Amino acid sequence: MYGLIGSFSAHPGKRDELIGLMTASTSAMPECISYIIAKDPQDADKIWITEVWDSAESHKASLQIPAVAETIKKAMPLIASFGQHTITEPVGGMGM
Amino acid sequence: MYGLIGSFSAHPGKRDELIGLMTASTSAMPECISYIIAKDPQDADKIWITEVWDSAESHKASLQIPAVAETIKKAMPLIASFGQHTITEPVGGMGM
Repeated sequence: MYGLIGSFSAHPGKRDELIGLMTASTSAMPECISYIIAKDPQDADKIWITEVWDSAESHKASLQIPAVAETIKKAMPLIASFGQHTITEPVGGMGM
Repeated sequence: MYGLIGSFSAHPGKRDELIGLMTASTSAMPECISYIIAKDPQDADKIWITEVWDSAESHKASLQIPAVAETIKKAMPLIASFGQHTITEPVGGMGM
Protein backbone atom coordinates (compact mmCIF):
# COMPACT_ATOMS: atom_id res chain seq x y z
CA MET A 1 0.00 0.00 0.00
CA TYR A 2 0.95 3.61 -0.49
CA GLY A 3 0.42 6.35 2.06
CA LEU A 4 0.90 10.08 2.22
CA ILE A 5 1.08 12.47 5.15
CA GLY A 6 0.99 16.06 4.02
CA SER A 7 0.34 19.56 5.18
CA PHE A 8 -0.34 22.82 3.45
CA SER A 9 -1.60 26.27 4.30
CA ALA A 10 -4.53 28.15 2.88
CA HIS A 11 -4.44 31.86 2.27
CA PRO A 12 -5.75 33.63 5.40
CA GLY A 13 -9.49 33.06 5.81
CA LYS A 14 -9.66 30.47 3.03
CA ARG A 15 -9.14 27.24 5.00
CA ASP A 16 -12.82 26.32 5.34
CA GLU A 17 -13.46 26.92 1.65
CA LEU A 18 -10.47 24.77 0.77
CA ILE A 19 -11.60 21.97 3.10
CA GLY A 20 -15.09 22.13 1.59
CA LEU A 21 -13.70 21.64 -1.92
CA MET A 22 -11.51 18.73 -0.84
CA THR A 23 -14.22 16.98 1.14
CA ALA A 24 -16.64 17.13 -1.78
CA SER A 25 -14.31 15.34 -4.17
CA THR A 26 -13.28 12.36 -2.02
CA SER A 27 -16.19 10.25 -3.27
CA ALA A 28 -14.70 10.50 -6.77
CA MET A 29 -11.64 8.44 -5.80
CA PRO A 30 -12.61 4.75 -5.99
CA GLU A 31 -9.16 3.31 -5.26
CA CYS A 32 -8.58 5.50 -2.24
CA ILE A 33 -8.69 3.47 0.97
CA SER A 34 -8.48 6.32 3.46
CA TYR A 35 -8.36 10.08 2.98
CA ILE A 36 -8.61 12.17 6.12
CA ILE A 37 -8.70 15.95 6.07
CA ALA A 38 -7.86 17.70 9.34
CA LYS A 39 -7.41 21.21 10.65
CA ASP A 40 -4.29 22.10 12.59
CA PRO A 41 -5.66 23.37 15.92
CA GLN A 42 -2.56 25.52 16.42
CA ASP A 43 -2.49 27.24 13.03
CA ALA A 44 -5.69 28.78 11.61
CA ASP A 45 -4.51 28.37 8.01
CA LYS A 46 -2.98 24.89 8.12
CA ILE A 47 -4.51 21.62 6.85
CA TRP A 48 -3.23 18.07 7.33
CA ILE A 49 -4.05 15.26 4.90
CA THR A 50 -3.36 11.59 5.56
CA GLU A 51 -4.04 9.20 2.70
CA VAL A 52 -3.92 5.45 2.04
CA TRP A 53 -4.05 4.07 -1.50
CA ASP A 54 -3.71 0.52 -2.77
CA SER A 55 -0.65 1.61 -4.78
CA ALA A 56 1.36 4.65 -5.85
CA GLU A 57 -0.09 4.13 -9.33
CA SER A 58 -3.66 4.43 -8.01
CA HIS A 59 -2.78 7.68 -6.32
CA LYS A 60 -1.12 9.05 -9.44
CA ALA A 61 -4.04 7.96 -11.64
CA SER A 62 -6.53 9.67 -9.32
CA LEU A 63 -5.04 13.04 -10.20
CA GLN A 64 -6.36 12.53 -13.73
CA ILE A 65 -9.96 11.76 -12.69
CA PRO A 66 -11.99 14.71 -14.06
CA ALA A 67 -13.70 15.54 -10.73
CA VAL A 68 -10.36 15.40 -8.92
CA ALA A 69 -8.52 17.44 -11.55
CA GLU A 70 -11.30 20.03 -11.35
CA THR A 71 -10.99 20.18 -7.55
CA ILE A 72 -7.22 20.65 -7.78
CA LYS A 73 -7.74 23.46 -10.27
CA LYS A 74 -10.18 25.22 -7.93
CA ALA A 75 -8.07 24.54 -4.84
CA MET A 76 -4.69 25.76 -6.05
CA PRO A 77 -5.48 29.49 -5.87
CA LEU A 78 -6.58 29.02 -2.23
CA ILE A 79 -3.27 27.41 -1.20
CA ALA A 80 -0.55 29.73 0.10
CA SER A 81 2.18 27.14 0.69
CA PHE A 82 2.95 23.44 0.94
CA GLY A 83 4.51 21.93 4.07
CA GLN A 84 5.24 18.35 5.03
CA HIS A 85 5.13 15.66 2.34
CA THR A 86 5.92 12.19 3.69
CA ILE A 87 5.42 8.96 1.74
CA THR A 88 4.61 5.93 3.89
CA GLU A 89 3.90 2.24 3.45
CA PRO A 90 0.72 1.43 5.44
CA VAL A 91 0.77 -2.10 6.83
CA GLY A 92 -2.14 -2.46 9.24
CA GLY A 93 -4.52 -1.00 11.75
CA MET A 94 -8.15 -0.04 11.38
CA GLY A 95 -10.02 2.26 9.01
CA MET A 96 -8.17 0.88 6.01
CA MET B 1 -12.78 14.83 16.49
CA TYR B 2 -9.24 14.33 17.66
CA GLY B 3 -6.36 13.22 15.46
CA LEU B 4 -2.74 12.34 15.92
CA ILE B 5 0.12 12.07 13.44
CA GLY B 6 3.17 10.55 15.00
CA SER B 7 6.43 8.84 14.22
CA PHE B 8 8.86 6.81 16.24
CA SER B 9 11.79 4.52 15.63
CA ALA B 10 12.30 0.94 16.69
CA HIS B 11 15.62 -0.38 17.81
CA PRO B 12 17.45 -1.81 14.76
CA GLY B 13 15.78 -4.99 13.55
CA LYS B 14 12.78 -4.59 15.85
CA ARG B 15 10.35 -2.69 13.60
CA ASP B 16 8.37 -5.72 12.40
CA GLU B 17 7.99 -7.04 15.95
CA LEU B 18 6.80 -3.62 17.11
CA ILE B 19 4.31 -3.33 14.23
CA GLY B 20 3.00 -6.82 15.02
CA LEU B 21 2.32 -5.84 18.63
CA MET B 22 0.57 -2.64 17.63
CA THR B 23 -1.56 -4.23 14.91
CA ALA B 24 -2.80 -6.93 17.28
CA SER B 25 -4.16 -4.46 19.83
CA THR B 26 -6.13 -2.15 17.52
CA SER B 27 -9.29 -4.26 17.86
CA ALA B 28 -9.29 -3.46 21.59
CA MET B 29 -9.97 0.26 20.98
CA PRO B 30 -13.73 0.66 20.45
CA GLU B 31 -13.77 4.46 20.25
CA CYS B 32 -10.98 4.63 17.73
CA ILE B 33 -12.24 5.70 14.30
CA SER B 34 -9.04 5.21 12.32
CA TYR B 35 -5.63 3.91 13.33
CA ILE B 36 -3.16 3.36 10.54
CA ILE B 37 0.29 1.91 11.09
CA ALA B 38 2.83 2.51 8.32
CA LYS B 39 6.48 1.84 7.63
CA ASP B 40 8.71 4.67 6.49
CA PRO B 41 10.08 3.41 3.16
CA GLN B 42 13.20 5.57 3.57
CA ASP B 43 14.14 4.53 7.12
CA ALA B 44 14.22 0.84 8.08
CA ASP B 45 13.51 1.59 11.76
CA LYS B 46 10.83 4.27 11.46
CA ILE B 47 7.06 3.85 11.94
CA TRP B 48 4.29 6.38 11.24
CA ILE B 49 0.95 6.29 13.06
CA THR B 50 -2.08 8.33 12.03
CA GLU B 51 -5.08 8.17 14.34
CA VAL B 52 -8.64 9.53 14.48
CA TRP B 53 -10.65 9.42 17.71
CA ASP B 54 -14.05 10.85 18.51
CA SER B 55 -12.45 12.99 21.22
CA ALA B 56 -9.20 13.60 23.09
CA GLU B 57 -10.85 11.97 26.09
CA SER B 58 -11.49 8.75 24.14
CA HIS B 59 -7.86 8.63 23.12
CA LYS B 60 -6.66 9.24 26.67
CA ALA B 61 -9.07 6.64 28.07
CA SER B 62 -7.85 4.04 25.55
CA LEU B 63 -4.43 4.08 27.17
CA GLN B 64 -6.03 2.56 30.27
CA ILE B 65 -7.74 -0.34 28.44
CA PRO B 66 -5.97 -3.47 29.77
CA ALA B 67 -5.09 -4.88 26.32
CA VAL B 68 -3.75 -1.50 25.21
CA ALA B 69 -1.79 -0.92 28.42
CA GLU B 70 -0.27 -4.38 28.02
CA THR B 71 0.74 -3.61 24.42
CA ILE B 72 2.35 -0.33 25.48
CA LYS B 73 4.29 -2.17 28.17
CA LYS B 74 5.57 -4.73 25.65
CA ALA B 75 6.25 -2.10 22.97
CA MET B 76 8.25 0.42 25.00
CA PRO B 77 11.47 -1.63 25.17
CA LEU B 78 11.39 -1.96 21.36
CA ILE B 79 11.22 1.81 20.81
CA ALA B 80 14.50 3.67 20.41
CA SER B 81 13.14 7.21 20.01
CA PHE B 82 10.03 9.28 19.40
CA GLY B 83 9.77 11.69 16.47
CA GLN B 84 6.89 13.78 15.18
CA HIS B 85 3.84 14.28 17.41
CA THR B 86 1.16 16.44 15.78
CA ILE B 87 -2.36 16.86 17.14
CA THR B 88 -5.01 17.49 14.47
CA GLU B 89 -8.73 18.11 14.23
CA PRO B 90 -10.13 15.75 11.56
CA VAL B 91 -13.10 17.25 9.73
CA GLY B 92 -13.90 15.02 6.77
CA GLY B 93 -12.83 12.65 4.08
CA MET B 94 -13.22 8.89 3.82
CA GLY B 95 -12.19 6.00 6.06
CA MET B 96 -13.48 7.78 9.14
